[in-house]
Amino acid sequence: MALSKKPVTGMKDILPQEMRIRDYVIRVIEETYASFGFTHIETPCVEHIENLNCKAGGENEKLIFRIMKRGEKLRIDSDATEESLTDSGLRYDLTVPLVRFYSQNNAELPNPFKALQIGPVWRADRPQRGRYRQFYQCDIDILGEASNLAEIELITATTTTLGKLGFEDFKIRINDRRILKAMAAYAGFAEDSYDDVFIMLDKMDKIGAEGVLEELIKAGYGEDKANKYLDLFKGATEGGTDGLKYVAEHIKDYLDEEVSTGLNEIIESVNAGKSCNFEIEFDPTLVRGMSYYTGPIFEVAMPQFGGSCGGGGRYDEMVGKFTGQNVPACGFSIGFERIVLLLLENGYQIPDEQEKYAFLIEKGIDSARLNEVMKEAAALRKQGKQVLVSRMNKNKKFQQEQLKEQGYTEFKNFYREELKH
Amino acid sequence: MALSKKPVTGMKDILPQEMRIRDYVIRVIEETYASFGFTHIETPCVEHIENLNCKAGGENEKLIFRIMKRGEKLRIDSDATEESLTDSGLRYDLTVPLVRFYSQNNAELPNPFKALQIGPVWRADRPQRGRYRQFYQCDIDILGEASNLAEIELITATTTTLGKLGFEDFKIRINDRRILKAMAAYAGFAEDSYDDVFIMLDKMDKIGAEGVLEELIKAGYGEDKANKYLDLFKGATEGGTDGLKYVAEHIKDYLDEEVSTGLNEIIESVNAGKSCNFEIEFDPTLVRGMSYYTGPIFEVAMPQFGGSCGGGGRYDEMVGKFTGQNVPACGFSIGFERIVLLLLENGYQIPDEQEKYAFLIEKGIDSARLNEVMKEAAALRKQGKQVLVSRMNKNKKFQQEQLKEQGYTEFKNFYREELKH
Repeated sequence: MALSKKPVTGMKDILPQEMRIRDYVIRVIEETYASFGFTHIETPCVEHIENLNCKAGGENEKLIFRIMKRGEKLRIDSDATEESLTDSGLRYDLTVPLVRFYSQNNAELPNPFKALQIGPVWRADRPQRGRYRQFYQCDIDILGEASNLAEIELITATTTTLGKLGFEDFKIRINDRRILKAMAAYAGFAEDSYDDVFIMLDKMDKIGAEGVLEELIKAGYGEDKANKYLDLFKGATEGGTDGLKYVAEHIKDYLDEEVSTGLNEIIESVNAGKSCNFEIEFDPTLVRGMSYYTGPIFEVAMPQFGGSCGGGGRYDEMVGKFTGQNVPACGFSIGFERIVLLLLENGYQIPDEQEKYAFLIEKGIDSARLNEVMKEAAALRKQGKQVLVSRMNKNKKFQQEQLKEQGYTEFKNFYREELKH
Repeated sequence: MALSKKPVTGMKDILPQEMRIRDYVIRVIEETYASFGFTHIETPCVEHIENLNCKAGGENEKLIFRIMKRGEKLRIDSDATEESLTDSGLRYDLTVPLVRFYSQNNAELPNPFKALQIGPVWRADRPQRGRYRQFYQCDIDILGEASNLAEIELITATTTTLGKLGFEDFKIRINDRRILKAMAAYAGFAEDSYDDVFIMLDKMDKIGAEGVLEELIKAGYGEDKANKYLDLFKGATEGGTDGLKYVAEHIKDYLDEEVSTGLNEIIESVNAGKSCNFEIEFDPTLVRGMSYYTGPIFEVAMPQFGGSCGGGGRYDEMVGKFTGQNVPACGFSIGFERIVLLLLENGYQIPDEQEKYAFLIEKGIDSARLNEVMKEAAALRKQGKQVLVSRMNKNKKFQQEQLKEQGYTEFKNFYREELKH
């Protein structure tokens, strides 16, 4: 069969220019998160198929790249099904593998455990511009911390990282799944319809309050409930109102007071520990898709770049699925690919590049001279300089121009006859 | 189905302690190779199945993790075979994907192109101690450089990296596929038996010259040839002999003189550009398994650690398989997992760790005080310190001891009633 030069459908090769930005972003992320005490871990890219299908992946479970069984275990016969032919798949996020990792290794981990993960995940999505089937995620999670110190640290660490990468004037939207539910209860929706109601609420950004109202009525929830529900959002978001206080007062019969004071404490503490310019704001319309969230949820909004740039929340009931015993857990996933794209589009300049030398060697130079060149290069590299040793092309001028484009500023030519500088 | 806490068979979770070493090794690798002008690139982990089966993978082609087709393309019926159900697989090395990458993108790449790749590869090997089915490879390659400057730069860059990681007194064994072939021709072996002969020669380490002789005779190659062949090795490796000169003189009717002078130039130039203590030595018994090598081949020997720690060589005919036009190419793969294992086993201390503070906060502290703590933490982090903010456990002493084990040296406790230092 002919060989294919293109990457597999929906995945991409990463060329040096983009890779430099990616490496730089990873370095800033690692250093900043380390300064908050997060420690790096890694799980295999391949995960048990039953873990991937544990219902914590939502829609992603439909997008799994499945890996075929091998050897005797692989039985292709008339009864074979997609399920019977496979026992593992590529991870579609870093949360499911993290929870498995924690369940397996927690005896050897500090408590609370602050984890940093950076790595590829795979989703067999329909290929579209700017979205790939292999992409990096970058998550921080705190396991074993029941108090809102977890949320405070996660949000502070993430915003500090974004600040170091030159982002500012973004907004952290924050809400709580328990407030979401209490608001729905206050309006009179039945508990088993919450998820459906939240899907409509989640469209507020796009279709506005009018649109959400219309959808709720069309879905048969009744005008009374729909109006009562949307009036609450209207009141909370009116100019000059403390939205959280407003909502908390209205739904106080449906919500433990600790939830709203706890959320308020997160907002205040994050503001206190701020290290760049951003806002953190209660947003009762924030839903976040995943059904596994149990408490505060949050998202980075960068309206100037058209959308979200990461998000997370508390998921206190997921470790229990593996171990039978729940462990408090909370995470924040930064939109790595989006950040890289924004930096690339804005022609971001990486600070503090080392000096770059190019040594060009004429063909046919004798061995003794070549040895001198290698010694000189070694000495400069020892000083921390970057030295490219390359053959001199026939078109020397063109070669130099190309090297200048790659950031080389110092040139030294070595000729066959004698060493000329 | 019950969820699985263990990683999938043959793969492993990486805990913080090992991860710190891995990150450090990656950083040293990236910085050192960058100082030689290598630029980082990345290919998808998933590769076309026809590329993986292109015969450049040798035995690894039997160990592919195959990914199932999806949607309409997946047809499980009575005619289905392992081949018909799959269109891609996980890469088993970084060389095949690199050559595809270069074939696809070379118009946008400098010439010569110096690539650095670090990333996971997968092989469905029988699980065994210390060998995993997912492991990292770290390759540097130079494409478009026909002269031995490529080999000189690859070997110098790799040995410099090893030196920076604290290794020394290792040995670079070097040979050339053309010398291997000429030696076999000199002894009278037919060309179509070379590969078979080399497999036996490759066992010299383990079974000695006597053993190889025996195997050759047993395989029916005739005592004359076998003896003539082994006498050549004996003469080349006798104390005080310049092995390369000895071999070159004997096989001069079968080998272009440029090959041995070129190899000698590599050895001399590498010695000239040395930045740590190691030897580079011609070794006529070095075979290197892969049949795609066309010129010089080399390996890092660390006898004190029982074996090889990386290797590579020239493969000028592989790009042509993709494009129809050959491009000179040469690479060196460092044994990343082995290096990490050696550093871990030797209790390697990462230099220059930042100061680590732990702020412990008593439960029930009021919001205003919490805000003060967050501000203090932010200020220290800004100075480059690492600050862990954590709830105070009931057993404070035990908590401190655990944190000391994680490298925290500065402690500060914040109590409910007042800020005590």
